[in-house]
Amino acid sequence: MTWVTGAEGSAYGVRNLPYGVFRSGGAEPRAGVRIGEFVLDLGAAEAAGLVLAAGALGRPTLNAFLALGRPQWTAVRQRVTELLTDSAHRPAVEPLLVPLAEAELLLPFEVADYVDFYSSEHHAGNVGQIFRPGQPPLLPNWKHLPIGYHGRAGTVVVSGTPVVRPTGQRATPDGPVCGPSVRLDIEAEVGFVVGVPSVLGEPVGVADFADHVFGVVLVNDWSARDIQAWEYQPLGPFLGKSFATSVSAWVTPLDALADAFVPAPEQDPPVAEYLRDVPHVGLDLRLAVEWNGERVSEPPFAGMYWTPAQQLAHLTVNGASLRTGDLYASGTVSGPRRDQVGSFLELTWGGAEPVTVGGAERTFLADGDTVTVTATAPGPDGTTIALGEVTGTVHPAR
Amino acid sequence: MTWVTGAEGSAYGVRNLPYGVFRSGGAEPRAGVRIGEFVLDLGAAEAAGLVLAAGALGRPTLNAFLALGRPQWTAVRQRVTELLTDSAHRPAVEPLLVPLAEAELLLPFEVADYVDFYSSEHHAGNVGQIFRPGQPPLLPNWKHLPIGYHGRAGTVVVSGTPVVRPTGQRATPDGPVCGPSVRLDIEAEVGFVVGVPSVLGEPVGVADFADHVFGVVLVNDWSARDIQAWEYQPLGPFLGKSFATSVSAWVTPLDALADAFVPAPEQDPPVAEYLRDVPHVGLDLRLAVEWNGERVSEPPFAGMYWTPAQQLAHLTVNGASLRTGDLYASGTVSGPRRDQVGSFLELTWGGAEPVTVGGAERTFLADGDTVTVTATAPGPDGTTIALGEVTGTVHPAR
Repeated sequence: MTWVTGAEGSAYGVRNLPYGVFRSGGAEPRAGVRIGEFVLDLGAAEAAGLVLAAGALGRPTLNAFLALGRPQWTAVRQRVTELLTDSAHRPAVEPLLVPLAEAELLLPFEVADYVDFYSSEHHAGNVGQIFRPGQPPLLPNWKHLPIGYHGRAGTVVVSGTPVVRPTGQRATPDGPVCGPSVRLDIEAEVGFVVGVPSVLGEPVGVADFADHVFGVVLVNDWSARDIQAWEYQPLGPFLGKSFATSVSAWVTPLDALADAFVPAPEQDPPVAEYLRDVPHVGLDLRLAVEWNGERVSEPPFAGMYWTPAQQLAHLTVNGASLRTGDLYASGTVSGPRRDQVGSFLELTWGGAEPVTVGGAERTFLADGDTVTVTATAPGPDGTTIALGEVTGTVHPAR
Repeated sequence: MTWVTGAEGSAYGVRNLPYGVFRSGGAEPRAGVRIGEFVLDLGAAEAAGLVLAAGALGRPTLNAFLALGRPQWTAVRQRVTELLTDSAHRPAVEPLLVPLAEAELLLPFEVADYVDFYSSEHHAGNVGQIFRPGQPPLLPNWKHLPIGYHGRAGTVVVSGTPVVRPTGQRATPDGPVCGPSVRLDIEAEVGFVVGVPSVLGEPVGVADFADHVFGVVLVNDWSARDIQAWEYQPLGPFLGKSFATSVSAWVTPLDALADAFVPAPEQDPPVAEYLRDVPHVGLDLRLAVEWNGERVSEPPFAGMYWTPAQQLAHLTVNGASLRTGDLYASGTVSGPRRDQVGSFLELTWGGAEPVTVGGAERTFLADGDTVTVTATAPGPDGTTIALGEVTGTVHPAR
């Protein structure tokens, strides 16, 4: 039970407490925790001695806090919970609550490396059917390892950042042309934020997931399908993805998602030893995609074929090291039904089956379109917690 | 003419002056310039007021210096040249020369994003012939755009760092197995180091290359061919590359390479407007690959199909922004002859045609093997300058 006005019963109640970085009142950026419609100024709380976090909370990114590790993450969360529930703390803490409307939310962490997986069987199958009709929808390697690739860390932007339509080459029957993308798409994904680094040459096991991963963001991996289709062979997506990847301003700690772990889909054929996670669990996050305010899809994260722990183990099995701030995303989250897909490529079946949005027939993104991805997860005692939304509006090509 | 003992006439003479970061005598890491068999301690020189660089030279990476931009890069180079040539400065400067043997060379800059291109026509053609015999060696997109992809920035290591043989999945006739790579290879490349960032959404033109790029490193993009072959479809190389990428400890400034620019190969079909660089020039860098001390190849960088300016323009045409510390590598440098290739995949034609190294028949890398890539470039007045070597020894899988 929190004493914060209006927060009790909210999806941003005291069982949630996601972390972000914000600016307000002319002061420097610092860490904050969302509670209801407020941001608790953690930088100020630490400066006042109300929270101890090795000076990590007054910084312009969460990276120093992320590097502290799970015992400290849990201790800070417990302390913040105490501050927000024990009314004895109210006189000291209430002045540190900043109304959300007065806070400018910034990119919560400096992204070290960004990896994007491709772990929804429904998504990979849909893409296979759209691009390789008549062939097996999944390639032979897909059920043996979580396919992934590196994206551009420097163009990961916080929710709300305008997305400029990318220019690039695309194939036409008359040869390649260069111009603004005409097949701009979204990918609704879930991203995992690495806090604790690992040593070069030493794999991180599936069981070590929670020692390294701090929490979760929502991700929109904007994709220019025409640019991607022309460039991607043989080395994979490049400019079709690298112009912008949006993440939510709030990082939901794994500690807030303890009640959201559910059995993941059975894997057949059996996976390699280093990918055997016990328990084999995913997260019951229920995503929703809004296109200009209209809900067009509800992708279920619980159905992902590869789990976040398997993705982490795979990412490092070759000895690749982790750094604080590494971000790895799930790949597009799509369920079995058309109203559960995480991309417009799938929603409109490659553009062949337009959908009606705002009364108009639509396939890919038009300038001025806004896409917002939200998600909820089961909290303790039948409660629901919300993940921070990720939203972006398409601006015309320059 | 430099007063530094032994440096005149050396390939690390006063026309070269590459930058690095070093540690010696228990002091903190700081910037240095190589002159002959010494490192000029730039951190100390700046602290003593001998060089002005906004405090950037006493840092543990070159990034702050890289961010200063071309006018400052040139001014610092001119000042260092003056210090090392005018004997009036000798009494103040000589004490700041650290013998190379006493300097521990560190990763010279913090890598922001790492992009790897694929810009040698001979290399791409060889790979095509090896993996797709009987088909056109180049894919349809290859001559229209410089193919590239993002690699892992966090596993870029400095020359001399041991390379642990990666473990991972590979395909066998009986299905995939997991274990240490059995086809560990090298890729001899040239890397370009970005100093000045750009704005998200705004492309960088071919003409702006020298405003953003500070200089050049040698790169060995270690590659596990068996892991790569199994994983790379459809999203490109991932774990087959991400375990380690070695770079030279010395960054050669573009200012030192003014005499190395040469006309690049003619491009047919004509390239898109944003890729038209005038003059269309590459760099006449002459690489050499040594396998356990034996020279096995001499890849000529001058023959690269796509130029560094074109690569930069392509990388940003979609609006992707640059950050200080971005590194983009050329892709494997291979010439037309077998003794000019930059990978052992090509040298041994997919392992089918072993070579003799140290009296033994060899295909891919064995534990304990050391590979060193060196390069030289034409300097002014018929002189030759050396690029810093990149070397690494293979350690057994863990």
